[in-house]
Amino acid sequence: MKKPRANSRGETRSAEGLGADLHLDRLDLQGHGLRASLMDALREAVRTGRLAPGVRLPSSRTLATDLSIARNTVADAYAELVAEGWLTAQQGSGTRVAQRSAPRRAPASGTARVVPQRPTPIRTPGAIYSLLPGNPDLASFPRTQWLAAARRALTAAPHEALGYSDPRGRVELRTALADYLARARGVYADPDRIMICAGFVHGLRMIGAVLSARRVRAVAVESYGAPQYQELLTEAGLRTPALPLDEGGTRTEDLALRGVGAVLLTPAHQYPTGGALRADRRAAAVDWARATGGLVLEDDYDGEFRYDRQPVGALQGLDPERVVYFGTTSKSLAPGLRLGWMVSPRSVAQEAVAAKGHVDWAPGALDQLTLAEFITSGEYDRHVRAMRLRYRRRRDELVAAIAEHAPAVRVSGIAAGLHAVVELQPGTERSVISSAASQGLAVEGLESFTHPSAAAPASDAGAGAGPDGEGAPARRGDALVVGYATPSDSAWSGALAALCGVLSRPEFGSKIHP
Amino acid sequence: MKKPRANSRGETRSAEGLGADLHLDRLDLQGHGLRASLMDALREAVRTGRLAPGVRLPSSRTLATDLSIARNTVADAYAELVAEGWLTAQQGSGTRVAQRSAPRRAPASGTARVVPQRPTPIRTPGAIYSLLPGNPDLASFPRTQWLAAARRALTAAPHEALGYSDPRGRVELRTALADYLARARGVYADPDRIMICAGFVHGLRMIGAVLSARRVRAVAVESYGAPQYQELLTEAGLRTPALPLDEGGTRTEDLALRGVGAVLLTPAHQYPTGGALRADRRAAAVDWARATGGLVLEDDYDGEFRYDRQPVGALQGLDPERVVYFGTTSKSLAPGLRLGWMVSPRSVAQEAVAAKGHVDWAPGALDQLTLAEFITSGEYDRHVRAMRLRYRRRRDELVAAIAEHAPAVRVSGIAAGLHAVVELQPGTERSVISSAASQGLAVEGLESFTHPSAAAPASDAGAGAGPDGEGAPARRGDALVVGYATPSDSAWSGALAALCGVLSRPEFGSKIHP
Repeated sequence: MKKPRANSRGETRSAEGLGADLHLDRLDLQGHGLRASLMDALREAVRTGRLAPGVRLPSSRTLATDLSIARNTVADAYAELVAEGWLTAQQGSGTRVAQRSAPRRAPASGTARVVPQRPTPIRTPGAIYSLLPGNPDLASFPRTQWLAAARRALTAAPHEALGYSDPRGRVELRTALADYLARARGVYADPDRIMICAGFVHGLRMIGAVLSARRVRAVAVESYGAPQYQELLTEAGLRTPALPLDEGGTRTEDLALRGVGAVLLTPAHQYPTGGALRADRRAAAVDWARATGGLVLEDDYDGEFRYDRQPVGALQGLDPERVVYFGTTSKSLAPGLRLGWMVSPRSVAQEAVAAKGHVDWAPGALDQLTLAEFITSGEYDRHVRAMRLRYRRRRDELVAAIAEHAPAVRVSGIAAGLHAVVELQPGTERSVISSAASQGLAVEGLESFTHPSAAAPASDAGAGAGPDGEGAPARRGDALVVGYATPSDSAWSGALAALCGVLSRPEFGSKIHP
Repeated sequence: MKKPRANSRGETRSAEGLGADLHLDRLDLQGHGLRASLMDALREAVRTGRLAPGVRLPSSRTLATDLSIARNTVADAYAELVAEGWLTAQQGSGTRVAQRSAPRRAPASGTARVVPQRPTPIRTPGAIYSLLPGNPDLASFPRTQWLAAARRALTAAPHEALGYSDPRGRVELRTALADYLARARGVYADPDRIMICAGFVHGLRMIGAVLSARRVRAVAVESYGAPQYQELLTEAGLRTPALPLDEGGTRTEDLALRGVGAVLLTPAHQYPTGGALRADRRAAAVDWARATGGLVLEDDYDGEFRYDRQPVGALQGLDPERVVYFGTTSKSLAPGLRLGWMVSPRSVAQEAVAAKGHVDWAPGALDQLTLAEFITSGEYDRHVRAMRLRYRRRRDELVAAIAEHAPAVRVSGIAAGLHAVVELQPGTERSVISSAASQGLAVEGLESFTHPSAAAPASDAGAGAGPDGEGAPARRGDALVVGYATPSDSAWSGALAALCGVLSRPEFGSKIHP
């Protein structure tokens, strides 16, 4: 159905010739050079998801033949895309689309976007090891116990559980969560206020709709955080001014200056810098919410994992009528489950049901019932305890290995969670990441998590004033955000050795060379 | 936290006194009478989902004591709400919130709605039996086989399957579906064009976003259909003019007159009137789409279930570049799975990935992998075959019983699907439903599925012109839409007897009395 197109040299080439797996139907080999055009087409295919992560590309020879262009052109394009992190080239496995989660910034078709530009994260060519943050150890998912819980749950389920459900999710799961969250996280939760959702992004999207309906115009965010959440709020039409961060955590006492209707926080374990929000800052957030009618959005993404200090209860316990609490199984079990929950103030709970619309985004009933059974049978606690020990051991090994091989490097944010911040010499972040990438190690820099308004150099911190008259949040130095939960047990020691190998190089400021 | 309020008699009553399960915190017993206020509060609690379907209410005695009002006031309010269908009163089971799916019209918070008003469906008090359409026989869900498939799938799954996924869903499931849909439904599908979604509503919402982004202003719908789909499109900012229906199906040749960018059809089995779209009408839909660049949205909700005639392949096979095909497990397995799929033209597939945003509404990976295994192992085909036999037997029993007990009543739309249309004497639809309800049988009338522009009496059909200059679609006569798949096997004969008992009454035009 597609017509062959003529290239700049007048030759006719068919985009179909790329083979069923490529579908580079936007490939336009005219204009600014063959290699650049091919790279654009491949980037576009990856960005839109048509070339899925892990998909193997044709060999450069095959593609060159299909396109009747020089093999070197294809090989160069592949190599550059590998260097940019779009593709990976692993020996024996060919060239593949890099195994990243979804594209960071899916194009919002037809809508004008006002998302501030962040630096393009450096992607990792041919990663053998990944210390990217955000995933738990997927190899440790308790498959046997989960299947056993599924069997018990499905055997016990009433027939109506298989029908259309309560928009808030199955009552069995909401009841189990109410008990668990009260016990483990100090959350004031009754099942009526809990809504099961398909993960934090789904919950945040519903709250974004609630806030928009309430005519809220802006939601404060932390100056460091996952960029997709800020982008999601921006897409919902909300401004997202950032609050500065210091050693006590995010400066919630500045909330009154921001003119916002809500604030998104990670109180138990700031993402990704790793500190806990100090008690006075917790109180300030709640006081602000009470005084202004605002809402605190508490993202408790990994509150279960805490090592050296006593668990910090959820902020929500301070005032359940002013805090929307979000939790998830994405760190405690697996992101693939797509199971999370939000606990809302009574008023918000009703509006969230409305925002959820026609129920059809609820997670499947069987997964919900299985998780309920997994929690009530005690398996969830057992699994979290086992993983806490395992992650703590890894954290200790990380700290010890860096102390041995790169003693000048400081590791922070280590009291909790699944990742640590490895602090680098100023100006070395991108070259450390590139160097790691060339060793087959995927790591992410703090830059990717930095709010645009915090991206000014540290020396300017607090000095400038943004367009909203807001002081620029303090910028942290160069650093890696190391997800030590990500590798499987078998890959862990190799990943750690690769990291230490990079950090110990003299050009990155290491004082001793191993 | 809530203050007790004074009622019109100056007495103080606490809304908290209603008990943790009720939370009637909007209960305001002032104003227009106690009974009416109590009914309003209960309706509101059901509407917002805070009182979930199936939830048991306190006895009228208990609630009356809590509120210090006369027991009769509570009992009367309950009885009226039962009559209105909000609650059910079943012997031995107390008063409960009626087992309906989600509220039909969730309030779109903060957004002005322009949804045309439909008649309020008559709800069924104290239903012992349900012949409401829309559900398969949930008691027949193949629990053992599903669990076995889950075990095989989870055992074989790579670790990365438990991580964040391709926005289109797991490739295992998309591959299995591509084969199945080609074989069973004549769908031209390659895995790249398939997107897994959480049911038809989720898919339609994504396409609604795609259409809005393309600046489409209107989507034609059939003059009979599920009202929530039309409402969803309306919420997405799209007009939804209706196409008339005659014995050849929906008049797709009228599409050119409608000025629409897409049309939503149920070609294999018109919902709910039950016919198949005639070949010339199928061709007309595709011709229109080709000529105008429009899209056909094909809702193939129960295409697997076909009894007397050869399977009608999907319309999508006529032109995969002009049709978006939607399928679901909600009729073939269970709505609680929340698993559906859409097969899009290449261009739409990319835009749908973008509309899907940040991936987090995907169904859980384990359910996706289980369904893939269920299909590839042949269990899906076996289950569909078994259910086809079972539903066909029920359909035959329905037709035979009505022929025996109410021979004047015609049953139509019976060649396929999970429901039949039982045609009533003019003007009797609502009284038949009420009469059935008083016998403990829940049924739904065709009126609930009628597009507002088709609601004029049949004699006006085609004569008037709407605000868009469109002829009013022909209105069908009074009828019941009987979901014969809904009861379990054990409830089926009782449900059928109750239906025949009502239909055979002389006041509903039956010629002989049993």
